[in-house]
Amino acid sequence: MTTSQQSSALHENEGVSEPETTNKSAIQAIKNKRHKQPSVADLVEGILAKDLTALSRAITLVESTNPQHLKKANAIIQECLPYANNSVRIGITGVPGVGKSTFIETFGTFLTAKGKKVAVLAVDPSSTLSHGSILGDKTRMEDLVKDDNAFIRPSPSGSSLGGVARKSRETIILCEAAGFDTILIETVGVGQSETAVHSMVDFFLLLKITGAGDELQGIKRGIMEMADAIVINKADGDNLKRAKTAKVEFNRALHLYPPKESGWQPKVLLASALKNEGIPEVWELINTYLELAKTSQYFDHKRKIQNKFWLLQTIEERLKSDFYNNPAIKTELQIQLQHIENGTTSPFAAAELLLRMK
Amino acid sequence: MTTSQQSSALHENEGVSEPETTNKSAIQAIKNKRHKQPSVADLVEGILAKDLTALSRAITLVESTNPQHLKKANAIIQECLPYANNSVRIGITGVPGVGKSTFIETFGTFLTAKGKKVAVLAVDPSSTLSHGSILGDKTRMEDLVKDDNAFIRPSPSGSSLGGVARKSRETIILCEAAGFDTILIETVGVGQSETAVHSMVDFFLLLKITGAGDELQGIKRGIMEMADAIVINKADGDNLKRAKTAKVEFNRALHLYPPKESGWQPKVLLASALKNEGIPEVWELINTYLELAKTSQYFDHKRKIQNKFWLLQTIEERLKSDFYNNPAIKTELQIQLQHIENGTTSPFAAAELLLRMK
Repeated sequence: MTTSQQSSALHENEGVSEPETTNKSAIQAIKNKRHKQPSVADLVEGILAKDLTALSRAITLVESTNPQHLKKANAIIQECLPYANNSVRIGITGVPGVGKSTFIETFGTFLTAKGKKVAVLAVDPSSTLSHGSILGDKTRMEDLVKDDNAFIRPSPSGSSLGGVARKSRETIILCEAAGFDTILIETVGVGQSETAVHSMVDFFLLLKITGAGDELQGIKRGIMEMADAIVINKADGDNLKRAKTAKVEFNRALHLYPPKESGWQPKVLLASALKNEGIPEVWELINTYLELAKTSQYFDHKRKIQNKFWLLQTIEERLKSDFYNNPAIKTELQIQLQHIENGTTSPFAAAELLLRMK
Repeated sequence: MTTSQQSSALHENEGVSEPETTNKSAIQAIKNKRHKQPSVADLVEGILAKDLTALSRAITLVESTNPQHLKKANAIIQECLPYANNSVRIGITGVPGVGKSTFIETFGTFLTAKGKKVAVLAVDPSSTLSHGSILGDKTRMEDLVKDDNAFIRPSPSGSSLGGVARKSRETIILCEAAGFDTILIETVGVGQSETAVHSMVDFFLLLKITGAGDELQGIKRGIMEMADAIVINKADGDNLKRAKTAKVEFNRALHLYPPKESGWQPKVLLASALKNEGIPEVWELINTYLELAKTSQYFDHKRKIQNKFWLLQTIEERLKSDFYNNPAIKTELQIQLQHIENGTTSPFAAAELLLRMK
């Protein structure tokens, strides 16, 4: 086999009779589809057949700002909904430096080895500003990115957290319809995005490290309160002793919070993603939680609450996008912003004027 | 003077000839006004004449959910706008227990003694839930509440932070038109409300104490980053030494952040509101900042940026309230929420259905 032949994956079985399901006309059909815009039916069929190209393309429609694309995206989601929901959704947060990427790489690889199909998504409203943000650089997850049973998608871009979160919420549905049974949703633990992620997951995991000053580790009380588990990462070598002390402290701190509606008492675990230590224990803990939550029906209850929240979120996002995408309003908004800049109007008068154009 | 006579403040000068400005017909006019709904013109006139009853009533209209009241409120704000803006707006945040009320009491009294007119407002979206919340209990500010040059208004109630913040933003305008030149806006430092308050003030002050574990003091990195000054309160007695150490640490931490757009390097001060120590230094620091910011024109620039932000916020709040107050949508929303509860629809389908009713 020459190098030029290797450059196309479609030739890799050359010389071997191709199986019927990938006969030449099917390949031609796929090639054709790639060159024109696939229909809603094409994409739904692809997603349900676990075709990752179809999944990626559908997610691109979800993430688009083009109203035609969004219409298509909504239709695809509607079709996929009956096949969604059969997964566990895990939120993973922690400030930069705690080793989120390494943890997800190790944890994700552990899960695919157990036969799970793992989708890794991210919610990071700052990603348009800071560029090389979480999951933006897939090379930080070298093994997982090559794993056939894993699908990694960086954070959608967008200026508003609501918009970014809505896109991720819908992407979860598509991934589940494509057969992914474990959804990991990464977020950076310094803003308001944890609340958004918390509202779309079954289990919320907070990564920590010891050694950094707590003030600069900067996890606010609200996030501690959301956590179903705290994993102290990098608990290896010289760090191990301090990590054990921190475990005791965090456990004590967690007990100060009022009991959770789920009845679950959050746990603290030690792990070293880099050395692949403590990872099975994290999965075991999540399963203990899932068993409890499913038995008590809290699992379904929570998903219903989340769905109600997402109903309102979807409405509010659409009200805004319909308003701001109105061409006349778009033009007038720029004029009013200039008036504010010049000090010739007030925000209230300008808002009034624009709202009357609805 | 008997006890029954004391019960009405209007009789307190009995036996002394009443000054002309409060003659009997004027009193009757005020009494009449109190019994009917005052007009927009009445309230604007009252506000500009520094009448606190008119101010309070106008704020009540701003805080109302009745569309008629809101219309009146908008008209009043429009009339007041040319008289607003001549103040310094100071945000004060800190977790419960840092002594915000005592600090505001001492700081406010210090300011009125210097001839300032001080309005104290609060932004606390949780106040409807937790009742006895910040500023709800005015008795915690015994001196300030009796001070003729101070006006204290607890947080407006409301379920959404956006709504609560919009009301406070508009209340600032009314207070300024009523001659208040120093606006203190208190918020509790555990949620997202600091961002809202930060977007309506010129100077943002973070109160801290030493001694409490930092993890439970729970100020997130984002809030540290917003602060123009950190005041370590309760820096007295046995606490003084620890407070001095903390000052060094916070100063070091503040230097780790990127420089502010204003060019201002945030400072750390020690104070004891209870012992009335360190208060003039806080005011001096704020004035140093104001001088710098006004000279560089950053002060005006920031207010313009804030006005643009508030234009968008006002629009988005109104889009939501117009939608949710539509009676047909109100009814259908309850039905759709029930469908979600029963698992017979998805949040996306339900949102679509409701949005088509717009």
